[in-house]
Amino acid sequence: MSGTLVTDPDVVDAASRDRSPVEEVGAAIALVRATCRDDVVATMRWANERGVPVITRGAGTGLSGGANAIDGCLVLDVSRMNAIKTINPAERIAVVEPGVLNGDLSDAVREQGLFYPPDPGSWRISSIGGNVATNAGGLCCVKYGVTKKFVRALEVVLADGSVMRTGTPTAKGVAGYDLTGLIVGSEGTLGVVTEVTLALVPAPDDELVAVALFDSASRACEVAATYLEAGGRPSMLEFMDGPTLAAVQRMADLGFDESVDGMLIVGCDDATRQDVEFAAFSRLAEEAGAEVFVAESVAESLQFTAARRLVGNAFEAMGRDLVDDVCVPLRRTGELVDGVRALGKKHRIRVATAGHLGDGNMHPAVLYSPGDAPEAVDEKRRAYAAFEEIMQLGLDLGGTITGEHGVGRLKASVLPVELGETNTRIQRELRRVFDPNGTLNPGVNLASDHS
Amino acid sequence: MSGTLVTDPDVVDAASRDRSPVEEVGAAIALVRATCRDDVVATMRWANERGVPVITRGAGTGLSGGANAIDGCLVLDVSRMNAIKTINPAERIAVVEPGVLNGDLSDAVREQGLFYPPDPGSWRISSIGGNVATNAGGLCCVKYGVTKKFVRALEVVLADGSVMRTGTPTAKGVAGYDLTGLIVGSEGTLGVVTEVTLALVPAPDDELVAVALFDSASRACEVAATYLEAGGRPSMLEFMDGPTLAAVQRMADLGFDESVDGMLIVGCDDATRQDVEFAAFSRLAEEAGAEVFVAESVAESLQFTAARRLVGNAFEAMGRDLVDDVCVPLRRTGELVDGVRALGKKHRIRVATAGHLGDGNMHPAVLYSPGDAPEAVDEKRRAYAAFEEIMQLGLDLGGTITGEHGVGRLKASVLPVELGETNTRIQRELRRVFDPNGTLNPGVNLASDHS
Repeated sequence: MSGTLVTDPDVVDAASRDRSPVEEVGAAIALVRATCRDDVVATMRWANERGVPVITRGAGTGLSGGANAIDGCLVLDVSRMNAIKTINPAERIAVVEPGVLNGDLSDAVREQGLFYPPDPGSWRISSIGGNVATNAGGLCCVKYGVTKKFVRALEVVLADGSVMRTGTPTAKGVAGYDLTGLIVGSEGTLGVVTEVTLALVPAPDDELVAVALFDSASRACEVAATYLEAGGRPSMLEFMDGPTLAAVQRMADLGFDESVDGMLIVGCDDATRQDVEFAAFSRLAEEAGAEVFVAESVAESLQFTAARRLVGNAFEAMGRDLVDDVCVPLRRTGELVDGVRALGKKHRIRVATAGHLGDGNMHPAVLYSPGDAPEAVDEKRRAYAAFEEIMQLGLDLGGTITGEHGVGRLKASVLPVELGETNTRIQRELRRVFDPNGTLNPGVNLASDHS
Repeated sequence: MSGTLVTDPDVVDAASRDRSPVEEVGAAIALVRATCRDDVVATMRWANERGVPVITRGAGTGLSGGANAIDGCLVLDVSRMNAIKTINPAERIAVVEPGVLNGDLSDAVREQGLFYPPDPGSWRISSIGGNVATNAGGLCCVKYGVTKKFVRALEVVLADGSVMRTGTPTAKGVAGYDLTGLIVGSEGTLGVVTEVTLALVPAPDDELVAVALFDSASRACEVAATYLEAGGRPSMLEFMDGPTLAAVQRMADLGFDESVDGMLIVGCDDATRQDVEFAAFSRLAEEAGAEVFVAESVAESLQFTAARRLVGNAFEAMGRDLVDDVCVPLRRTGELVDGVRALGKKHRIRVATAGHLGDGNMHPAVLYSPGDAPEAVDEKRRAYAAFEEIMQLGLDLGGTITGEHGVGRLKASVLPVELGETNTRIQRELRRVFDPNGTLNPGVNLASDHS
């Protein structure tokens, strides 16, 4: 095996968690740094024969605990498998290893006049393998869709070390069941992805944005839904509520008035459509009493987008944050924001909501103070209580407990509530087909899949 | 049960085949015409307990024998479950029963300013349930993608009669494995779809087209690939070779010169982009020696599109046709067309190729005469030999044996060749999870799944 086996406890420990607030992290017995598919095959064979659990990780930027170690496991790190094997402009595809960072791939394809749309908040530092594992989304999805839409084919090492190819590099293909789509979003529980064939699109024009400031968060949500219902085709439709703006404002002075309680950012990356999109959006926003700015340059547009991308850091700077990831019907997003605020009051906890409003994919954040002091411990308890109720609120509004972060360990116990009995049963049985010995990421996605 | 049970042999026989050339059709014991989900549940329970195979059918427009009966089976017809339950412009979704015709849904959503893109050649007469079962494509796919991209959620009756809901009506959702995507394209082998939630998009502008006539089929293919590589973003990119044009010409005089050996139709349904798209395409096509016409009206555009849509009927009028459905990388489409012609010569059989060139999804047709005369029997043997070799040619060019028609019974024996050993094994085991007794469409998709 050409990869490295590490047993130094400090190094292993450092590789044993992702960026989620999930605190339960077990003691792994070792860390394998794979450099090629054969390393992965050897690791899976060894582990499967001995019944040793394997937790696969890429860049470790996940937010749901999907890469957190458990006691006695191997941590399999594929971040060194980071070759961009092919960029083919004629076929509009790229073939990459799982450890390639999204940002590095995006830069590389841009140089060839192409565009890889999926852009999770972590795009600069998250890996394609991780994006595939969680079916990551981002700001682009309202126009381009999530990661799954761009994955054409995979090479996967199964739990027993056998190698499976799925899909085809062609634009279409319906030969057999869609195992590619089944593995995308499966959070490392069905196999270890060792190669990804991705679809690319022609590079769009420079994205310009319009920004609207409302004194009511839920009215901002209503305007967004009305704009889409009227035929709006934005390349971005993002939302930040007042508390989120305040948090961002603490990081970088954006000059927002404190009376602003809801901000929309509408992007358009098709130069031929920008006038019509911004006119349609501005009219609706102004009718609803908003103040609207249409950026006059790419630089100005990037500034507003950067403010949106700062949200994660801004929350982190305020303490610990439990960022939820519910997705609800567009017409229910206002109720979601209002409901989250009511839950914040009920549990006496700071909450703030931002999100990919054009998809109904909202990220309410529940903020609490770190530490072991009794007040901190109590605040954390209230934060988790609010978080649980936000998930339930998402379901009550006809939505889902996760739009793009994944289930991980954070939401594994709630997943069966959303899926229902028959779907849960089928999912558990499918998992056993791929991994009869329960080696791959036990406890992730479906908590009690081998109970 | 509110549905109808029919045992009249003539009626049962008439419902026992789809539009494929697959001639093996068994004798079903009865036909169930379901009118609601409970009919499907009752049928599946009854059949599963007795080990009676169930062949589900919608409109019966499939081209791969996926709805052909086998001896001793029940035929379950869901075409009377044809209610459009919801069209929701705010959420851009429709909720429909499986028997709704694609054309009827398309008309209904258009009235509300929305668009359901998937448009298989059979769109006027094929059902949404069948489109879901085969993951149907069409002329739209180069811009909008295949059926799978538009299916958000399903209600499915499993082999044992249990009811499962998959997916969510929201734009995004990653809670658990993507069972929705697994069932789309599974050709009725994993369950019976009883409700479909579909994503819609804003109605586009009127589609205009440009047409280019080449004296070389493979040169037309090259120009199409170059146009896409240069950043072309058509809403349609279709191909017909000389023999196809001749067949269509026999149906409707389109005034084509006999020297034309390849025709491209490039569509654009975004009024703000039409000038730039047609200019870019025209320049490339003219440089390659083609004659180019840019339609000046919707009527003229529809005329060219109609000619493309006539291909199926034109072939049928010439005898029997085995229409293949291979999908290959864009840069290999010219080789495919030339290779198909060589196979025609080799097997002394008429061949013609049309297809969704922008996706590399080509439909070579192998034509033969019907009948039992020795010459006809021999010609049919040669036609099937050519057909098999076309599938292999598609694989040799790095493609797949089916881009949109599905595997059905027609290609079931070849499927494992494309999938490879591990993928085939996993697919068989997945099928057993859904259908342990092998009740659903035995012999379809994976021929020997219970052998």
